[in-house]
Amino acid sequence: MTEKQTRAADGVETADTETANAEAPDAYEQLLDRVERLSYLRNASSVLRWDQQVMMPEGGAPARAKQSSALSAVTHDVLTDEETGELLDELDDADLTPDQQAVVRETRRRYEQETRVPGELVEELTRTSSEAQQVWQQAKADDEFDAFAPTLETIRDLHVERAEHIDSDRDPYQVMFEGFDPYLPLDRVEEVFDDLREALVPLIEDLRSADAELADPFEGEWDEDTQMALNREAVERLGYDFERGRLDTSPHPFTNGNQFDCRITTRFKPTEPFDALMATIHEHGHASYQLGLPQEHYGTPLGQARWEIHESQSRFWENHVGRTRAFWEYFTPTLNDHLGPDLSPREAYEAANQIYPNNLIRVEADELTYHLHIILRTEVEKQFIGGDIGIDEIPQVWNDKMDKYLGVRPDTDTKGCLQDIHWTSGFAGFQSYTVGSVLAAQLDATMREDLDADVDELIREGEFEPLLDWMNENVHRHGQRYPTDELIEHVTGEPLTADYFIEYAEEKFGELYGV
Amino acid sequence: MTEKQTRAADGVETADTETANAEAPDAYEQLLDRVERLSYLRNASSVLRWDQQVMMPEGGAPARAKQSSALSAVTHDVLTDEETGELLDELDDADLTPDQQAVVRETRRRYEQETRVPGELVEELTRTSSEAQQVWQQAKADDEFDAFAPTLETIRDLHVERAEHIDSDRDPYQVMFEGFDPYLPLDRVEEVFDDLREALVPLIEDLRSADAELADPFEGEWDEDTQMALNREAVERLGYDFERGRLDTSPHPFTNGNQFDCRITTRFKPTEPFDALMATIHEHGHASYQLGLPQEHYGTPLGQARWEIHESQSRFWENHVGRTRAFWEYFTPTLNDHLGPDLSPREAYEAANQIYPNNLIRVEADELTYHLHIILRTEVEKQFIGGDIGIDEIPQVWNDKMDKYLGVRPDTDTKGCLQDIHWTSGFAGFQSYTVGSVLAAQLDATMREDLDADVDELIREGEFEPLLDWMNENVHRHGQRYPTDELIEHVTGEPLTADYFIEYAEEKFGELYGV
Repeated sequence: MTEKQTRAADGVETADTETANAEAPDAYEQLLDRVERLSYLRNASSVLRWDQQVMMPEGGAPARAKQSSALSAVTHDVLTDEETGELLDELDDADLTPDQQAVVRETRRRYEQETRVPGELVEELTRTSSEAQQVWQQAKADDEFDAFAPTLETIRDLHVERAEHIDSDRDPYQVMFEGFDPYLPLDRVEEVFDDLREALVPLIEDLRSADAELADPFEGEWDEDTQMALNREAVERLGYDFERGRLDTSPHPFTNGNQFDCRITTRFKPTEPFDALMATIHEHGHASYQLGLPQEHYGTPLGQARWEIHESQSRFWENHVGRTRAFWEYFTPTLNDHLGPDLSPREAYEAANQIYPNNLIRVEADELTYHLHIILRTEVEKQFIGGDIGIDEIPQVWNDKMDKYLGVRPDTDTKGCLQDIHWTSGFAGFQSYTVGSVLAAQLDATMREDLDADVDELIREGEFEPLLDWMNENVHRHGQRYPTDELIEHVTGEPLTADYFIEYAEEKFGELYGV
Repeated sequence: MTEKQTRAADGVETADTETANAEAPDAYEQLLDRVERLSYLRNASSVLRWDQQVMMPEGGAPARAKQSSALSAVTHDVLTDEETGELLDELDDADLTPDQQAVVRETRRRYEQETRVPGELVEELTRTSSEAQQVWQQAKADDEFDAFAPTLETIRDLHVERAEHIDSDRDPYQVMFEGFDPYLPLDRVEEVFDDLREALVPLIEDLRSADAELADPFEGEWDEDTQMALNREAVERLGYDFERGRLDTSPHPFTNGNQFDCRITTRFKPTEPFDALMATIHEHGHASYQLGLPQEHYGTPLGQARWEIHESQSRFWENHVGRTRAFWEYFTPTLNDHLGPDLSPREAYEAANQIYPNNLIRVEADELTYHLHIILRTEVEKQFIGGDIGIDEIPQVWNDKMDKYLGVRPDTDTKGCLQDIHWTSGFAGFQSYTVGSVLAAQLDATMREDLDADVDELIREGEFEPLLDWMNENVHRHGQRYPTDELIEHVTGEPLTADYFIEYAEEKFGELYGV
């Protein structure tokens, strides 16, 4: 066991003793009952969402909307009930174990987020978001940013108002950012993004000038059954537990569930079997986190995942396993079995690592340029929230940044600042994708240092269990026990840093593109 | 429009006026909000149940149990909240439209059922039922009634106690019976059962002595895909709306949903394609009722089905359509296309109407002997609840009745009084299966009188829409507007009667068996 692992494990031993729980104050037991009920109700909502996207016949939509909103309403009522506040107050100075403190900390955060914002504002936000999606869709179709601009301004104002209700002493953007993960300091993330931008802009420029041709060997069409069989075999080999999960199709791939039942979805285009496979492996990563959460803490924050960590798990499996040379040395024969062509591992490896510097669209971006799409968005939204740029300046600022970071310039707003739906429901969410990638590389580096075996060799042999076990031991089983920054330091010995991602990217793509 | 239809429609016109609703007292609007929320939450629970039986991976069970029970608990809390009672009291003398009165009537009934029984007794019943299922399973496996007897006595005592809480002035069995449908008088049902027994015992005896050989042409095995395609085509032709439904497989066939989204399931045995097909058509009947409920009343009793009516709809489609000669004249070519053999319509018709008088097991019984299995159970349970027979006498009484009604005697309790799981969760539920068949025949007779076209001719042409429309117009669209007995009289012009079923049975099986 390395020093890092010992630190993490120590925390657990202190926290996890049965006797401490047995002596828990009455108020804690009452709070725990409430917390569990809330969590079961949220999980019930999540079953309804999965069903809606995967199984529900079209005609069911009106009824489902009413079921979901009734369920949200009762969940909200249980959380914001006066008694929750009284129990939390009572526990303020109580003698609690670290685990119990973690449960109270996370519950208090949720309680405050939901009680500080007036109900009318919540309703207005919901209504405005829903209307905004339609306005945005039309504006995007018409390539008319002006048609969306007033709505976007209203959304900004409402979200600033919301942030001020939550904490009027702090910068609204900071409050929005903390809505996703309160335990990862914004200034740290911004430093990481600065480092990343400084390294990636020249690297991508180098790759572009290298003018190397990577193999792009997929020509043909593959039907859904063929692709599904490949995807099923892939995640099964990677360790996805079908006794506690399912793989289905849905319009957008997603992961849904808990430590007992965590399901993933993917989607197939006949000509793009690689896209689907990578999406499925990505979702397997999300599922591995959910399925690795401790079953004995189901229903409490100790058995729940952290937002910012989640994306590190999906990116780890997608990129640090699924896009490695070792993986394709292992998996190419299986790919060939299912899809027919006789690829070499090198060809498959190259196909998995194509870079498209001229691409303007975030969702079509590759592993590398993707982060500049994200960095651009976080910069634009922060300036917009902070009032540093006006609504009318967004298209120009967006296009200038695209030019500066990726050397391409959108000729329409549809391909520029109108491309994403995200701002219709708020701000500061984009960053988590890049944080996830950076953290995935940092965890990968720690794992490679920690494990006795050579990780590439394990992957080449199809031995994924040690990787899964390491993540489980170091990350998954803690749930929300530690704040995110503490967990990262516990496991990796340092704060979130871009160094490992940059090193990984320079090495891999340098070799692939010969730069 | 016949006289009967006019009666039904009159009721509706009086009840359905928009203006009356607009002037509804405040308390009514508040009650309605609550009723809708309750109904949406119950529908959410029902999505969880469907998922559990059709989609959920095995490992999900522990989490699902917690989600479902949290959802039940909040639903119970909303229903039994003091405010519900206050609103109901306030509406006692309010000036309400007939539709509003129906909503209040049905809500009051639910409220009283849930508030009159102490929480501890509900919990004890739940716990005891759950334990009893395991005891019963073991006792059945060991063929040892004595091992189940003490548990069965406890269950009886608890259910009698429950009935006394609900209404201490009335016979406990009557109260249990009314838990399923309070609006169908027990004495009427008992008269119907008496008539049925008197007619069916000699009829079955005649069929047995006729010693006729009906075609039993299914030899071979059919895989699930083949059977599924047949079943899908069958219900599609019968009018099942796949835009608002799905057909899947589950361990036991069931129907689940509402007027926007009502799903059915079936199950396949390789050698028994007819069983699955009949089960699927049966479930289509249930679904036709749900899907025929008025969408504008979704979430209120006016948009909800009645228990006793439900089985009439499934039996109508299963027996009065699916087992008719006309249907097989229409459907046999399709059956042959899917399954391969070259049956004549007569062979298929005979295969759908086999009688097995020597069968001891209810769930394997045919259309005719089934009712004697049910009548036996209702007689035994009524005597047991009323204290007319002791626990130890049950096996003997059961076997004597089997002998008397069907001329066969179980040689083990496993094939006798231990065969059903039902009593582990209560009594008086069996009767609804037979009530459903009797009512199906009564509705069928009324429909044949009402419709301009010849119903057999419609079926022979695959024109099922007029049948569906008639049921919709006369039964489905009323939801719980009328008490069950009123609805039956409205539609058929007379109270529930066994006459039509007996006539139908004597005619059909007389012809088939030449007696």
